[in-house]
Amino acid sequence: MEVLAAAIAIGLAALGAGLGNGMIVSKTVEGIARQPELRGPLQGTMFIGVALVEAIPIIAAVIAFMAIFM
Amino acid sequence: MEVLAAAIAIGLAALGAGLGNGMIVSKTVEGIARQPELRGPLQGTMFIGVALVEAIPIIAAVIAFMAIFM
Amino acid sequence: MEVLAAAIAIGLAALGAGLGNGMIVSKTVEGIARQPELRGPLQGTMFIGVALVEAIPIIAAVIAFMAIFM
Amino acid sequence: MEVLAAAIAIGLAALGAGLGNGMIVSKTVEGIARQPELRGPLQGTMFIGVALVEAIPIIAAVIAFMAIFM
Amino acid sequence: MEVLAAAIAIGLAALGAGLGNGMIVSKTVEGIARQPELRGPLQGTMFIGVALVEAIPIIAAVIAFMAIFM
Amino acid sequence: MEVLAAAIAIGLAALGAGLGNGMIVSKTVEGIARQPELRGPLQGTMFIGVALVEAIPIIAAVIAFMAIFM
Amino acid sequence: MEVLAAAIAIGLAALGAGLGNGMIVSKTVEGIARQPELRGPLQGTMFIGVALVEAIPIIAAVIAFMAIFM
Amino acid sequence: MEVLAAAIAIGLAALGAGLGNGMIVSKTVEGIARQPELRGPLQGTMFIGVALVEAIPIIAAVIAFMAIFM
Amino acid sequence: MEVLAAAIAIGLAALGAGLGNGMIVSKTVEGIARQPELRGPLQGTMFIGVALVEAIPIIAAVIAFMAIFM
Amino acid sequence: MEVLAAAIAIGLAALGAGLGNGMIVSKTVEGIARQPELRGPLQGTMFIGVALVEAIPIIAAVIAFMAIFM
Amino acid sequence: MEVLAAAIAIGLAALGAGLGNGMIVSKTVEGIARQPELRGPLQGTMFIGVALVEAIPIIAAVIAFMAIFM
Amino acid sequence: MEVLAAAIAIGLAALGAGLGNGMIVSKTVEGIARQPELRGPLQGTMFIGVALVEAIPIIAAVIAFMAIFM
Amino acid sequence: MEVLAAAIAIGLAALGAGLGNGMIVSKTVEGIARQPELRGPLQGTMFIGVALVEAIPIIAAVIAFMAIFM
Amino acid sequence: MEVLAAAIAIGLAALGAGLGNGMIVSKTVEGIARQPELRGPLQGTMFIGVALVEAIPIIAAVIAFMAIFM
Repeated sequence: MEVLAAAIAIGLAALGAGLGNGMIVSKTVEGIARQPELRGPLQGTMFIGVALVEAIPIIAAVIAFMAIFM
Repeated sequence: MEVLAAAIAIGLAALGAGLGNGMIVSKTVEGIARQPELRGPLQGTMFIGVALVEAIPIIAAVIAFMAIFM
Repeated sequence: MEVLAAAIAIGLAALGAGLGNGMIVSKTVEGIARQPELRGPLQGTMFIGVALVEAIPIIAAVIAFMAIFM
Repeated sequence: MEVLAAAIAIGLAALGAGLGNGMIVSKTVEGIARQPELRGPLQGTMFIGVALVEAIPIIAAVIAFMAIFM
Repeated sequence: MEVLAAAIAIGLAALGAGLGNGMIVSKTVEGIARQPELRGPLQGTMFIGVALVEAIPIIAAVIAFMAIFM
Repeated sequence: MEVLAAAIAIGLAALGAGLGNGMIVSKTVEGIARQPELRGPLQGTMFIGVALVEAIPIIAAVIAFMAIFM
Repeated sequence: MEVLAAAIAIGLAALGAGLGNGMIVSKTVEGIARQPELRGPLQGTMFIGVALVEAIPIIAAVIAFMAIFM
Repeated sequence: MEVLAAAIAIGLAALGAGLGNGMIVSKTVEGIARQPELRGPLQGTMFIGVALVEAIPIIAAVIAFMAIFM
Repeated sequence: MEVLAAAIAIGLAALGAGLGNGMIVSKTVEGIARQPELRGPLQGTMFIGVALVEAIPIIAAVIAFMAIFM
Repeated sequence: MEVLAAAIAIGLAALGAGLGNGMIVSKTVEGIARQPELRGPLQGTMFIGVALVEAIPIIAAVIAFMAIFM
Repeated sequence: MEVLAAAIAIGLAALGAGLGNGMIVSKTVEGIARQPELRGPLQGTMFIGVALVEAIPIIAAVIAFMAIFM
Repeated sequence: MEVLAAAIAIGLAALGAGLGNGMIVSKTVEGIARQPELRGPLQGTMFIGVALVEAIPIIAAVIAFMAIFM
Repeated sequence: MEVLAAAIAIGLAALGAGLGNGMIVSKTVEGIARQPELRGPLQGTMFIGVALVEAIPIIAAVIAFMAIFM
Repeated sequence: MEVLAAAIAIGLAALGAGLGNGMIVSKTVEGIARQPELRGPLQGTMFIGVALVEAIPIIAAVIAFMAIFM
């Protein structure tokens, strides 16, 4: 049961992180294609946003590892 | 059963946080690409919004840790 | 069973709060990007709206804590 | 079983309230961004609408508390 | 089983009432933002519509209370 | 089992009535906002439509009451 | 089991009738708001359409009553 | 089991018929609102289309009655 | 079990036929409203298309009858 | 179990064929309404396309008959 | 169990093939309606595309037949 | 159980391949209808893309055959 | 159970890879149809993107083979 | 149970990674087709974004391997 729980936790986290990061990075690429001179601040905002999105899935990964090893 | 409960809680929280933050950050990037001089207030609003969105998922993470250790 | 109930309650609450806050904050960011001089009243309305949206999920968090400790 | 019932009731109520309030407040923010001089009546209508939307979820919260304590 | 039935009834009713009222009030706010002089009849129609929408969910709330106390 | 059946019947009926009435009333509000002089016939059509929509959910409410008391 | 069957039948019928009638009446209201002089034939077509839509759900209501009383 | 089968058959049939007829009649109302002089042939086509759509759900109703009485 | 199978077969067939025919007939009504002089060939194509769409659901109806009587 | 398998096979096949044919025939009707002189080749392409779409559902019907009689 | 497996395989294959072919053929009909002189190469591409789409569902049909006869 | 596994594998693979190939080929047909002189490179890219899409479903077909014969 | 696990892994991987590759290749075909002189770099980016998308599904295929042979 | 858990983990991860990467790469291809001179920075941003998206699914792959070998 622990392994199944780890799989559900990391699976939903991967799905959420993939969709969230996909929206952010695709908008950033679209913004750079329109205004190339803003490449710096757009990528900076992108990194901050991706880091904020990844926060909860990484906790989910930690919980998944804990569910296996504990 | 406790581990499965932790997995469901953190998984749904990661999904909700990913979608919510993805909407906010992608709109912010789009706004900066249009008007680069507003980078400061847009990022400020973004940080406030992300912090407000993360509130409930972090409680969910706390509950997930409590479900494992208690 | 109590832990599973807490997980379902806090999970659905996080999903609902994430989607609802995501809509509000992303519209606010879009509005500031159009008219920067309205930053004050838009953020004020945003805080009121987020507080109203968070009301029911916070009750859900309270119920989740009660389901574990009682 | 009572705790699980309370979790389902408050979870669906939080989801419904989050989506409904999200639609109302985001439209209000959009309206203020277009016409700032209407901030008063728009917020007034918003408060009435949010109060009407919250009516049923608050009954759901009451039922959830009753399901636990009774 | 009675408590679970009450939870399902009030939960679906809250979801339906939230979505329905959300559509009505958000359209009303949008209409007031366009034509502020129509604030009276638009709010009047909004109250009638919300009352009509709330009819069935309130019966659902009554049934949920009956399922618990009977 | 009778209480669960009543909950499912009234729950789905509330969901259907909420969505259907929401569509009708929101379109009526939108129509009044465009042409305020048509407020009478639009509200008249709205009342007829809401009454026709409520027909089946009210039978569902009757069946739900019958499922409990019989 | 008979009561559960009646609940499923009347619930799905209410959902279908609500969505179908909602589409028809909202389009009729939109049409009257555009051309008020066509109020007669539009309402006539609306009544015919609603009657045709209600045919199957009313049979479902009959079957639901039969499932309880027989 | 026969009553449950009848409920599923008539329920899905009512859902399909409601959605299909809703699309047809709403488009007809929209067409009459644009060109009132075509009210005759549009209603004629509408009746033919509704009759063709209702064919399978009526067979479903027959099967539902057979499942109860046989 | 045979009755349940018949109900599933005829139910899904009614859903598919309702959606397919709804799309075809609504487009035909829209086409006649634009160009009334093409009423003949449009209805002819509509009849052919509806007949082709109804082919598989009618086989499903035959299978449903066979599942009951055999 | 064989009858249930036949019902699932023919039901999903009817749903797929209804949606696929609905898309093809509705586009053909739309095309004829724009350019009536192309009625011949459009209907020819429509027949070929419908025949190709119906190929797999007819195999499904054959499998459904085999599941009953074998 | 073998018959149920055959039904699931052929049912999902029919659903996928119906949606895929429906998209291809409806776009081809739309293209011919715009530029009738390109009827040859459009139909040629359509046949190639349909053949490529049908590859996996035909393997599914083979597996369904094998599941019954083996 | 092996046959059911083969059915699920080949069924999901057929659904994915149908949707993916449908998107690619329909865009190719649309592109040829706009610019007929690019028929060669568009079809070349289409073949490469379809081959890349079919890679995983063909592995799924291999696994389905292995699940039956091994 | 191992074969069922392999089927779920390879089935979801085929669905994900089909949708992802379908989006990439269809956009590439659309881009070549607009600007034929960019065929080289667009196809180069397409190959890199498809290779990156295929990475996780190929690991899923490896896991599916391991689930059968181990 | 371990193999089933590995299959769920890697399957959801492949689905999320496929959708996320598909959005990013398709936007990049669209951007290059508009402005070919920005091919370098767009591909650079694409690689960073894909690497960030792949982070959680690769952890999921690691957990899936651990679920099998441990």
